[in-house]
Amino acid sequence: MPMTIDSLGVAKFPSPLRWAVNGATRIPYRIAREIGAAPGDDIDFEIAGSRKDLFFNPARVRAAMVTCGGLCPGLNNVIRSLYYELTHAYGVPEVYGFQYGYQGLDPARGGEPIRLTDEFVDPIHKRGGTVIGTSRGPVDSVVAVDNLVWRGINILFCVGGDGTQRGALALHQEAERRGYPLAVVGIPKTIDNDVGFVARTFGYSTAVEAARDIIDSAHMEARSVENGISLVKVMGRHAGYIAAGATIASQDVNFTLVPEVPFVLDGEGGLLDALTRRIRKRSHAVIVVAEGAGQDLLDRSAGETDASGNIKLLDIGPFLRQRIESHFKRVGIPVAVRYFDPSYVIRSRPANCEDAILCDLYARNAVHAAMAGKTGLVIGHLHETFIHVPVEALVAEKKRLNPEGGWWHAVLAATGQPEQFGPPAASGKP
Amino acid sequence: MPMTIDSLGVAKFPSPLRWAVNGATRIPYRIAREIGAAPGDDIDFEIAGSRKDLFFNPARVRAAMVTCGGLCPGLNNVIRSLYYELTHAYGVPEVYGFQYGYQGLDPARGGEPIRLTDEFVDPIHKRGGTVIGTSRGPVDSVVAVDNLVWRGINILFCVGGDGTQRGALALHQEAERRGYPLAVVGIPKTIDNDVGFVARTFGYSTAVEAARDIIDSAHMEARSVENGISLVKVMGRHAGYIAAGATIASQDVNFTLVPEVPFVLDGEGGLLDALTRRIRKRSHAVIVVAEGAGQDLLDRSAGETDASGNIKLLDIGPFLRQRIESHFKRVGIPVAVRYFDPSYVIRSRPANCEDAILCDLYARNAVHAAMAGKTGLVIGHLHETFIHVPVEALVAEKKRLNPEGGWWHAVLAATGQPEQFGPPAASGKP
Amino acid sequence: MPMTIDSLGVAKFPSPLRWAVNGATRIPYRIAREIGAAPGDDIDFEIAGSRKDLFFNPARVRAAMVTCGGLCPGLNNVIRSLYYELTHAYGVPEVYGFQYGYQGLDPARGGEPIRLTDEFVDPIHKRGGTVIGTSRGPVDSVVAVDNLVWRGINILFCVGGDGTQRGALALHQEAERRGYPLAVVGIPKTIDNDVGFVARTFGYSTAVEAARDIIDSAHMEARSVENGISLVKVMGRHAGYIAAGATIASQDVNFTLVPEVPFVLDGEGGLLDALTRRIRKRSHAVIVVAEGAGQDLLDRSAGETDASGNIKLLDIGPFLRQRIESHFKRVGIPVAVRYFDPSYVIRSRPANCEDAILCDLYARNAVHAAMAGKTGLVIGHLHETFIHVPVEALVAEKKRLNPEGGWWHAVLAATGQPEQFGPPAASGKP
Amino acid sequence: MPMTIDSLGVAKFPSPLRWAVNGATRIPYRIAREIGAAPGDDIDFEIAGSRKDLFFNPARVRAAMVTCGGLCPGLNNVIRSLYYELTHAYGVPEVYGFQYGYQGLDPARGGEPIRLTDEFVDPIHKRGGTVIGTSRGPVDSVVAVDNLVWRGINILFCVGGDGTQRGALALHQEAERRGYPLAVVGIPKTIDNDVGFVARTFGYSTAVEAARDIIDSAHMEARSVENGISLVKVMGRHAGYIAAGATIASQDVNFTLVPEVPFVLDGEGGLLDALTRRIRKRSHAVIVVAEGAGQDLLDRSAGETDASGNIKLLDIGPFLRQRIESHFKRVGIPVAVRYFDPSYVIRSRPANCEDAILCDLYARNAVHAAMAGKTGLVIGHLHETFIHVPVEALVAEKKRLNPEGGWWHAVLAATGQPEQFGPPAASGKP
Repeated sequence: MPMTIDSLGVAKFPSPLRWAVNGATRIPYRIAREIGAAPGDDIDFEIAGSRKDLFFNPARVRAAMVTCGGLCPGLNNVIRSLYYELTHAYGVPEVYGFQYGYQGLDPARGGEPIRLTDEFVDPIHKRGGTVIGTSRGPVDSVVAVDNLVWRGINILFCVGGDGTQRGALALHQEAERRGYPLAVVGIPKTIDNDVGFVARTFGYSTAVEAARDIIDSAHMEARSVENGISLVKVMGRHAGYIAAGATIASQDVNFTLVPEVPFVLDGEGGLLDALTRRIRKRSHAVIVVAEGAGQDLLDRSAGETDASGNIKLLDIGPFLRQRIESHFKRVGIPVAVRYFDPSYVIRSRPANCEDAILCDLYARNAVHAAMAGKTGLVIGHLHETFIHVPVEALVAEKKRLNPEGGWWHAVLAATGQPEQFGPPAASGKP
Repeated sequence: MPMTIDSLGVAKFPSPLRWAVNGATRIPYRIAREIGAAPGDDIDFEIAGSRKDLFFNPARVRAAMVTCGGLCPGLNNVIRSLYYELTHAYGVPEVYGFQYGYQGLDPARGGEPIRLTDEFVDPIHKRGGTVIGTSRGPVDSVVAVDNLVWRGINILFCVGGDGTQRGALALHQEAERRGYPLAVVGIPKTIDNDVGFVARTFGYSTAVEAARDIIDSAHMEARSVENGISLVKVMGRHAGYIAAGATIASQDVNFTLVPEVPFVLDGEGGLLDALTRRIRKRSHAVIVVAEGAGQDLLDRSAGETDASGNIKLLDIGPFLRQRIESHFKRVGIPVAVRYFDPSYVIRSRPANCEDAILCDLYARNAVHAAMAGKTGLVIGHLHETFIHVPVEALVAEKKRLNPEGGWWHAVLAATGQPEQFGPPAASGKP
Repeated sequence: MPMTIDSLGVAKFPSPLRWAVNGATRIPYRIAREIGAAPGDDIDFEIAGSRKDLFFNPARVRAAMVTCGGLCPGLNNVIRSLYYELTHAYGVPEVYGFQYGYQGLDPARGGEPIRLTDEFVDPIHKRGGTVIGTSRGPVDSVVAVDNLVWRGINILFCVGGDGTQRGALALHQEAERRGYPLAVVGIPKTIDNDVGFVARTFGYSTAVEAARDIIDSAHMEARSVENGISLVKVMGRHAGYIAAGATIASQDVNFTLVPEVPFVLDGEGGLLDALTRRIRKRSHAVIVVAEGAGQDLLDRSAGETDASGNIKLLDIGPFLRQRIESHFKRVGIPVAVRYFDPSYVIRSRPANCEDAILCDLYARNAVHAAMAGKTGLVIGHLHETFIHVPVEALVAEKKRLNPEGGWWHAVLAATGQPEQFGPPAASGKP
Repeated sequence: MPMTIDSLGVAKFPSPLRWAVNGATRIPYRIAREIGAAPGDDIDFEIAGSRKDLFFNPARVRAAMVTCGGLCPGLNNVIRSLYYELTHAYGVPEVYGFQYGYQGLDPARGGEPIRLTDEFVDPIHKRGGTVIGTSRGPVDSVVAVDNLVWRGINILFCVGGDGTQRGALALHQEAERRGYPLAVVGIPKTIDNDVGFVARTFGYSTAVEAARDIIDSAHMEARSVENGISLVKVMGRHAGYIAAGATIASQDVNFTLVPEVPFVLDGEGGLLDALTRRIRKRSHAVIVVAEGAGQDLLDRSAGETDASGNIKLLDIGPFLRQRIESHFKRVGIPVAVRYFDPSYVIRSRPANCEDAILCDLYARNAVHAAMAGKTGLVIGHLHETFIHVPVEALVAEKKRLNPEGGWWHAVLAATGQPEQFGPPAASGKP
C-alpha cells in the first residue's frame, strides 16, 4: 500500500471538520453477481472523504496544484474548490498554483507559482480554460522535488491524465526516497471519460452537451442542401463515449464511428455502401466519428498513398472526408460534404452543472486525502461513491464502451446503422 | 416475486435483438463494507436489459403509455424512445399514448388515445412538456383494465412518481386477477431525485442547470442594490437535491435550506440573525430554499396567525419572504427583497444531454422488461446499472440528502453557512 | 441651446483621437415625405461623435458615473466602455462610480464612490446587474453639486430613465448657476424601449430574448395539461414593445395585451369570451400581458372590490389570473392556469451581443459629448445614427407601438387574436 | 419604374387587411445635413406595407418561394411568415416551395415543389437551415418562366443575395416580355450585412452572437497555454460587420482584420511585429479575421509561392496561421496556435429574437408588395422603415464599414490595435 505517508509515524492532528468517514470502509469494483453465486475475490477501494485524524497540521501546510494536458471543462472549478477547501475548511494558510503544467515545477522552465487568494479564485469557475495554465509533457522528478522541498510545499495536487498521474507517482516516490513528507494526490482529467475505476470524469458531460449543439448544426447543414453529408469529428482517442453520448442525446446522427467497433469502408455493406444507400433514400446524412476510430484504416491508407508518412493522414476526419468525396464522385452522385472539427470549441467551455458539482466533490475529496497523509493516489468515483485509487491501478485499467451493452444498443437504435459494416457474411454472428 | 407474468406459462418468443443480458445477474443495493467484514445479507435487484426469450410475440403486441403528475424535463424523450424501441427494435405494430395521465385510461373522462407514428414522435425530444399530456390523480383500476382489455392493450408504460407507480401496481394486480396478460412497467419520474434504488432520475440534471441560471439572476439582483436579498424557492418536497446541487454548482448562494436539515428562524444564531450579520458585513445575500424545507415553522405560524388554516401560509417561499421583511423592518435595516419562484420555468425545459441519455436508456430498458413479460416493477438505476425494482420496494424506500455526507459538506463550504441555525448550545454536537 | 458649457469660452483642447465628426451635421427626426411634397420644418438633432476640439483638458479631468432605477441588461457594459473611452482613448486619469444611484451623490446617504480601475472593470461586461449599484429616487441637486464640486468632478454620466435624466438636468442647471464647469451627459435606460428620439434602447433586445424563453416554457406548460392556460406578465409600463417583440419572435402566443390597445374583458367578444372559444377549440392558450396593459380595468375593479385601494390589485397579472379562473369556474370548464412573472429574471441577464454593441457605442458617444463640453443632453439613436438629445426634448416625447403599423399587424397575425376585444359593434371600423 | 405590373391595368381588388400605408410615402436615403444647408436631391424609396388595393385577387393566387445560396439564420422564419401572411392574412389558397434553390425552378433538375401547409410550416422557425433546401447557381429564365406559367404561379418570392436578386429580375423581365402577370419580390439574404439600402439583413445578429461564443472559446484556449494564439476566421467577404460586431461585443479580441482596412503583415509595425510585442508582453493573443480581409496578401503570396494557383492559399485563415507559425519559429518564440473556422456552425443556428422579428417583418412586407402587384424589387429596411428597393439599385450599392466611423473606432478601442499596421511613416496621417 503506497498510499499513505508513513515515514513520520501515525497521523496525529485532529481534523477541524465536523464530519468524517469511516476510513475502514471499502467499495468493491465488480458488484454484479449471479443468483446464488458466492461473492468472489475482488479489487476494492478505500472510501474517500474527510478523516478524523490528519497527518498534517493545517496551520503549517503549504499546498500547491498544477493542471496538465489538454483543456477540459471544469479545471477552474477544481482549482477553486481545492483552494477553498484547503483554506476555509482546513485553515491552510498558503496555496500556490504552479503555472503551465509540469513545466512550472522546473525553475529553469517556469516562473514563480501564483499565490492563490480569495479574490483571485472567486470568479474563475464561470470561465473555461485554466487560470494557472497548462502544458503537455513531463518534468524531471528530481528537479521538481528539489523545488518543492525548497519552497516547503507539503501537498501537491496534480490534475491531469494518465501521463500526469504517472508523473505524480514519480514525484511521490522521489519525495519518499528522501524521507520528505509530501502528499501527492491526483484528480483524473480526461474529457473522453475513459478511465478505469472512475465512472464519470469531469468535463465529459459538458463536452457531450457541446457536441450535441454542433451535431444540431451539422444536421441543419446536411438537410438544407441536396445530398448533404455532414461529418463531425469529436474527441475520443480510445473510447467513444462522447460520440455515443452525443448521438443518443441528439437522435439526429445516422452513422456513429468509435474506436471500440472497427468498421470496413469499402465493398458491399461497408460504410461507403451504407452511406450511398442512405443518400439515395433520404438525400442527407450525419456522421459522427471519434478521433480514435478507424485507426487501422489510416495506417493502411498511409502506406498506400503516401510513402513519406504524412502525419495529416493519421487524422481520421480529413481522411474520411476525402474518401467520401472520392467515392461519390466515382458513383456519380453529387454530394455536398461539410466537415466539422469542433474540439477546441468543446473543451474550452465552462463546466455545466453536472461537471461543476463533480469538480467540487473531486477537489474536496482530494484535499481530505492529502490532509490525512494519503499519497500516490487519485480520487476515483465508483458506484456513486468517491474512492481512493492507487495510481498504479488507475494506469493499468481502461474503460471502454461495451459493444454488447445498453449504450451501444442505444446508439444503433438512434442511428439505425448496422451492427457491423462489411460484407453480409462478415457481419453475421453465429 | 410479483414481477413476471406467469399466468400463461413460460416465455417463448425469440427476441429479434442481437444482444441480451444474463437474466440471472443481480445488483446488490448496499455495497460498502468494512475491511475484513463478511458481506451481509442484502437487498439485490434483477439487472435490466434485453432478454433472449420474450413473453410476448412482438408482431401481436399492442402497447400503450401514459405520463402522470407534474412536468419534468425528458418526458418527451421517454415517449419517443419507448415508441422507437417497441416499433423499430422489436417490431411492435401498434403503440398508443393515453392522453392527460391516468384520466385518459377512463373512457368517461378521457378521449381516444393517440396512435403514435414515426412522424408524430420524431421531433418531440427537443421540446419540454409532454406531447401526450398529463394530469394528477388516480383512475379506477377496474374501469381502466376494462378499457385496456377492450382495446387489446398488452403492455402499459406508466411514467410518474410514487402515486403513479402505486396505481400501476393496482392495474397489474387487477389484470392478474382476471388472468389477462398485461405487462405494466413503470419509469420513475421525480424531478426531485428522491427515489430509493434510483441513483439518478431523469429531469433532475436539467432542473439543476435551470436553477443555477435563476440563482445567477438572483445574485445579480441582490448585488446591484444596497442590502439586496434574493430568495429563490426551488423544487424539493422531501429532499433537497436540487437546492444542494444548484448551490454547489453556482457557488453564489449564502444560505441553502432543505427538508433534511431543520432550521431555527428566530433568536441568536437563528437564520434571521445570521442573515442580519451577513447583510451588515456584505450588503447582499442569496437564499435558496427547497419547497419542503421548514415545514415545521409553517405549521406553527399557521396556527398562530390564521385559525382558518390559510393554505397560502404553507408555502415556505412567501412565508420566509414576509418573515425576512418584517425582521429587517424591526431591526431598522432597509432591505430590498426579491422573491423568485421559478418552478414552472424549470420543469418545462427540454432535457439536457445528461437527461436525454438517461431517458433513452430508461425507456429502452422498460421495453425490454415488458417484452420479457416483467410486470409490477419500475426501472431503477443503481451503481451505474439499470435494474428492475418491484413497485413495493420503490414506494417503501426514500432517498434523502445525508447531513453528514459529502454533498452537504460541499453545500456548507459553498455557502459558508453554519452547520445548524440556532443558539450556540443547540448547534453543538457532543 | 442649453447643451454646451459656454461659461468658460470656446473649447480649446485638441482631441487625442484621430477621427472626428462634423459638428454641424444634423439628423432630422421625421423623414418620411409624400411624393412631390416640400420638406416641412422639423426637429433635428446634432450628430454625436468625437469632436476635434475639446472643452476639457483630458489630463485634468475627473469623471464619474452613476446608474439609477431598475436593472437593465447592459449596465455593466456601459460602465466599462465609459471607463475605457475616458481613460484609454482620452487619457483621463481618474474615473469614479458613485454607488447605488443618486443616493450615492449625497454624502449623508452614500459612501465613498468607487475609484474605477482596469482590473475592476475588465470582466464586468459578462455579468448582469450593475457593479456600482443602483437605487430609485432623486437627490437634492444642491447637495449633490456641493459634493461634485468638493471632489473636483467635471464630468458626470447619468444612466437611467426619465426621472434620472430630469435629475441630471437639475444638476447641470445647478452647476451652471454657480458657474462651475460640469458636463452632465445622460444615457437613456429603459428596458421597455419607449423613449422618443431613441429607436433602440439597450437591454431591450436581451429582454425580448429572455421573454421568448419564458414564453416557450409557458407554452409547454399550457399544452401539457388539459385546458392549460399560461399567463405571462412582461415589462412594459407604457409601451408594449417587449410583449410584441417576444410574441412575433415566439409565434406561440395566442393573446397579447399591451398598454396601447385597450381591451374589454367581459361580454360577447371580450377577452374572456375569446379565450373560452380558444380553449374549447384547442384546449390550451398562452397569454402575454405587458404590465401597463388594462390599467383602466384595474382602477374600476379596485373601486368595486376594495375600498381601501389595495395596491396589489393594481397589478394586472394577478388580476387577470383571478378573472380568468373565476370566469372558467362560472362557465364550468376546468382549467389549469399557470402564472409567470419573470421580470427579475429577465432584467438581470447579461447583455446579448446586440445590446453589448449598443451599450459600447452609447457610452463612447457619451464620452465624446462630455469631453467636448456638451451638457444637459442624453445620447439618442435615430435612423442608424447616434445623436444628442436635449433632456427637455427627451422627457417630452414618448415612443409607443402604433396600433395601425406593421409591428401590431405582425402581432395580430402571430396570435390570430381579433383587432379589438369587445362586442361586434364596438370592434367594427367603418 | 419597373416595379409594378402594369400590363393589365390598375390594381382593383380590395385588400382584406384593415390597415394600409399611404403608397405615396417616400423614405430618403441620405438624411444627414449641415445646419442651414438646403436638402439636396437624393434617392428615395417607396415605403413598404399593405396597400388598400391589390393587383391580384387573393382567392385565385398561386404563390411560390425559393431560398438560394448559403445558409443564414432565419430562412425558415421567412418561409413560415410568407406562408402565413399569404394564406391567413390574404386568403391565398395555394403556396409552394420550390426545392433546393433555383435548380428547383428547372423541371429537368428539380423535383416537384412542396405544397406548404399549416402543419408543415408551423414548427420550422425554431430550427436552423431551410426546410425547402437551397443551392448555389442560376436557372435559365426562359425554362423557369415556362415552368411558372405552366403551374399557374403568379407570385414568386426569391430569398437570396445579389446573384439571386439578379436572377429574380431576369424572371420578372422574361414574364413581362410575355405579358404574363408575375410578381417577383426579393428578400435580401446576406449574413454579412453588406447590402446597400438595407440597414440590417436577417441572420446577422444571430451570427454575431454565435461568433462571440466562439471567440470566448478562442480566448480561453489562448489564455490557458503559454504564448497561446487563437485565430478565428469569421464570415465577411467584402465587409467586416461580423468581425467588428463580435469584437465590440466580446471585448476579448486583440486584433481584428476586415476587408475595408488593408494591413501589412511583415516589417516593423506590421501585424506580425505587433503580435510579437503582444505575446512578449501578455503571453497570449486572440485574432479575428474576416474571410475577405487581406486578399491582396494572398494574391501576392500565391504568385510567389505557388505558380499553379493553389486554391487553398486563397483562404486567409490557413494562410495567416502558417505565416504566424513560421514567423514565431523564426524569432524563436514557441507559440501554440489554435485555428477556428466556425462558419458552418454559425450560419446553421436558428434565428435569435432580433432576427426572428426581422424575418417576420421582411416576409409580411414582401407579401404586401406582391399582392399589390409590385415586382422587380426587394424589401429593404432603412431608417427604421421597410421600403421597396428596385433590384437594379440594390445590386449597384454596397454597404461597407467606415474606417473613419464610430464602429471602427469602437473596434480599435476594444482591441487596442493600431489604426494601421505598417511602418510608422505609413501609418501616419497628417
